[in-house]
Amino acid sequence: MRSAFYISDGTAITSEVFGHALLSLFPTEFEHHTISFVETIEKANEAKEAINKAYKRSGQPPLVFHTFVNNDIREIIDNCDGVIYNFLEHFVSPLEKELKLEAKPKAHRTHSIHENSYDYRIEAVNYALANDDGSNVSNYEHADVILVGVSRSGKTPSSLYLALQYGIKAANYPFTDDDMEELKIPDFLKPHKKKIFGLTIDADRLMDIRDGRMANSKYASARQCRMEVREVEKLYKKEKLPYLNTTKFSVEEITAKILAATGLQRYKY
Amino acid sequence: MRSAFYISDGTAITSEVFGHALLSLFPTEFEHHTISFVETIEKANEAKEAINKAYKRSGQPPLVFHTFVNNDIREIIDNCDGVIYNFLEHFVSPLEKELKLEAKPKAHRTHSIHENSYDYRIEAVNYALANDDGSNVSNYEHADVILVGVSRSGKTPSSLYLALQYGIKAANYPFTDDDMEELKIPDFLKPHKKKIFGLTIDADRLMDIRDGRMANSKYASARQCRMEVREVEKLYKKEKLPYLNTTKFSVEEITAKILAATGLQRYKY
Repeated sequence: MRSAFYISDGTAITSEVFGHALLSLFPTEFEHHTISFVETIEKANEAKEAINKAYKRSGQPPLVFHTFVNNDIREIIDNCDGVIYNFLEHFVSPLEKELKLEAKPKAHRTHSIHENSYDYRIEAVNYALANDDGSNVSNYEHADVILVGVSRSGKTPSSLYLALQYGIKAANYPFTDDDMEELKIPDFLKPHKKKIFGLTIDADRLMDIRDGRMANSKYASARQCRMEVREVEKLYKKEKLPYLNTTKFSVEEITAKILAATGLQRYKY
Repeated sequence: MRSAFYISDGTAITSEVFGHALLSLFPTEFEHHTISFVETIEKANEAKEAINKAYKRSGQPPLVFHTFVNNDIREIIDNCDGVIYNFLEHFVSPLEKELKLEAKPKAHRTHSIHENSYDYRIEAVNYALANDDGSNVSNYEHADVILVGVSRSGKTPSSLYLALQYGIKAANYPFTDDDMEELKIPDFLKPHKKKIFGLTIDADRLMDIRDGRMANSKYASARQCRMEVREVEKLYKKEKLPYLNTTKFSVEEITAKILAATGLQRYKY
């Protein structure tokens, strides 16, 4: 199998995103290797050696996606037996011309700490944890968004992703049998109705997920899952709440759709 | 201020990473706009309109970073008043030649659900939550890694990021006064010593963080913070545990460094 290398003097997250975006266009498999924090000549030579070995192993030159700022280190990698794809190279000069500014690269700047933004994200993670699963219903005035839905419809991972990736404070509240029976928003949520965003999920998928946690339970039964999903969607429609069916979406897609639908200001890094 | 637009028919995460990586090389500020899920002609026209308005507002043509798969939609955006940077365009043909394969783009494939990988990440998030802050010390045999350290050294956000981004099951355990006093690894951790990774942090930074949570407490005092950090680092050295000082690092850098140091296999998407 052909190897793909993602290499950088920082986290290599940018190289990974860059390489994955391109390779996902091709209907074939690759052996993926990430080499991060290649900050010294010695580490660059090790990385070059790893690429050259992968060539010998497979007989195919590895694809190398890199984002280097230091020229001495980059040159070592550029002299490996792989095929180099360097996206900075293609775009920096056109951008310099357009901006009438010279690029001033700092080593691994993209995914490092910027001013107070880190604190902001950690605070959002702490908020999401303290307000997970309806655990703190008196605290919703500080929420940026309140995700609601039945158990296992994707609220917790979405709240945490919003916090970690975007610094957004997301509480989440699972509708209970009582809420459902009366088909109403609980009183403590009413003052924050504008912040509510509903999640739903196909009943079949919900059954699978719940069965993985509590096999053969009433909680995972077809009847229970169908009833909960039907009721919660009825509630969303009745209360005109924005909502999303998460069944076919990744956590990245769910959160991007929540941001697009709510217009929530994401934290920028 | 000049605007930068990140646009895609999917989450636009790739466009954001691509654009941020380039713009972070320039010592100037931009007004950032993300427009995700531009999947219809109508939405493409709206996006084009937003770009043209930003041009009128600032008098400077916005920078537009996009990743489109559908040509009809891409053409609409390409005809806006902004300057287009399309990184797919530059790399797809060279890759097709190298791979001797034709690119078969599927709409927003990069950050969508792939096979069972989503479940794997959600399972890892559930694991991290169930094993946060030493809450389940009997469960460490299922961990991929066990983060240890004093309170507020970055264990919880790092565990959650490892789970959400890489599908890695990370437990975390805060050393207690008793562990410190005897300067030893607790008995229940000993069988899993190879999975332990230590975090530490500068005492001054720790004081700041703790003071933000419990102002003027003993917990946040200089004496307490210095003592805890000194003891925990002594323990890491005595037990030859791998460890990292998180003070100057973002959660992306901390987790990338943990992966690099442990050789843990990340989940690939």
